[in-house]
Amino acid sequence: MAHNKFYKKTMREQPLDNIVYGRNSVLELLKAGKRTVNKIIVAQTARGGAVNEIIDLARTKGIAVHNVPPEKLDKYSENSQGIAAEVSPIQYFEIEDLIALAKKGTNSPLLVLLDGIEDPHNLGAIIRNCVAFGAGGVIIPKWRAAGVTETVSKSSAGAIEHIAIARVTNTNQTIDLLKKHGFWVAGAENGGQILEDAKLPFPLALVIGSEGFGLHNLTKKNCDFLISIPQTNTISSLNASCASAVILYEITKRQFKINK
Amino acid sequence: MAHNKFYKKTMREQPLDNIVYGRNSVLELLKAGKRTVNKIIVAQTARGGAVNEIIDLARTKGIAVHNVPPEKLDKYSENSQGIAAEVSPIQYFEIEDLIALAKKGTNSPLLVLLDGIEDPHNLGAIIRNCVAFGAGGVIIPKWRAAGVTETVSKSSAGAIEHIAIARVTNTNQTIDLLKKHGFWVAGAENGGQILEDAKLPFPLALVIGSEGFGLHNLTKKNCDFLISIPQTNTISSLNASCASAVILYEITKRQFKINK
Repeated sequence: MAHNKFYKKTMREQPLDNIVYGRNSVLELLKAGKRTVNKIIVAQTARGGAVNEIIDLARTKGIAVHNVPPEKLDKYSENSQGIAAEVSPIQYFEIEDLIALAKKGTNSPLLVLLDGIEDPHNLGAIIRNCVAFGAGGVIIPKWRAAGVTETVSKSSAGAIEHIAIARVTNTNQTIDLLKKHGFWVAGAENGGQILEDAKLPFPLALVIGSEGFGLHNLTKKNCDFLISIPQTNTISSLNASCASAVILYEITKRQFKINK
Repeated sequence: MAHNKFYKKTMREQPLDNIVYGRNSVLELLKAGKRTVNKIIVAQTARGGAVNEIIDLARTKGIAVHNVPPEKLDKYSENSQGIAAEVSPIQYFEIEDLIALAKKGTNSPLLVLLDGIEDPHNLGAIIRNCVAFGAGGVIIPKWRAAGVTETVSKSSAGAIEHIAIARVTNTNQTIDLLKKHGFWVAGAENGGQILEDAKLPFPLALVIGSEGFGLHNLTKKNCDFLISIPQTNTISSLNASCASAVILYEITKRQFKINK
């Protein structure tokens, strides 16, 4: 991956619980090869496609594989799918590095800034969307928001191994910084420009609000423009991860058209 | 809602746990007014916008409101947001009724068929998408799949109160039935037609596969065509709820264009 060279610089964060569990998550962990994997723990009963692939990959890389009774995996999560890995903690990027990385070698830099996502499942799904649609990085707040925990890793189906993540103390200062670096800042919010009609110029930073309350008022004011997803029924809105998927799809689609 | 008249016929299912919790879920439950609410249970410490609205609405409807110490809510869920309701179980539709309902009064009938979604958070989010994008109903399998539990209700942010849901024993027989009723059956699957280029004719039934494995082989064969979401990076796919959001967005967008 192009951003390997940034990895050594950013060790100021608290280490996270250093367990990754679930088949996709462990597989992507090994494939990405960025974090040090100390050992793989496999339930004796767990076999089949992804598990075999994990075991083979671990052996190729000289990583110890421990076969254990299935109930031992339960201490990590009831949702472990019979497999877990002990790893070095995820390394966050400094925001300046993340911006530089996103702009490198592309004329359509795209970042996603999360304004207070609290649900780790949502955070994991959003990161997964960011990887699928080629965003150059994800920015999450340090406070009052989900950090990148095991649950996030699992919900991202291993996608956290494939994208640069920065944590910031102040969303609005970050927006100012992004603007200073030439980014257009688009907030996802009801009542904004209709997504399909909105211009979405690059470099672009997409801001996604929290599950319950959307964007903070100050954040909303700081965005260059707001975009909203047309719905046929306003009884229900989309959850934050689904909203981010739709907007990132629309952005990606246009890039494809330009590149065709 | 137009489908009230169907509600009396479909009581063959097992009743679900009859608790709804969470602010949005309880609010939408009361607003929809379709299920009998026996009582509302509110934590003494829970106040603020949605809670006050719920209490007012309950009083207007003559529903008892019980103020309880906050820890009493924990028996329902640690995620209750200080509010729960005791209700009659959700009433599923018969599949034939659901199809009739979806076709009624529209020239663009849209149904969503889930081929084995196991995660209740995903199911809730998908139902939420269906309501937001105006699908006429959701069809879920009876076996090896999540039913509409409290967690689903919570994850749907109350959207389950606003859409017709049918449970079926056999996905492929259901596809045949949908075809017999004139529906085009589109499966979401990697390697299908690119979403934006695909014709999406109505009446349309969209089939979404399970989180881990996508569509079953037989289901895939039975679909009239397959559609896939273009991604810039195939390391990671989208989760089932995000994929459904993107496809439903594309369908809705085209309807808007036709109606403009």
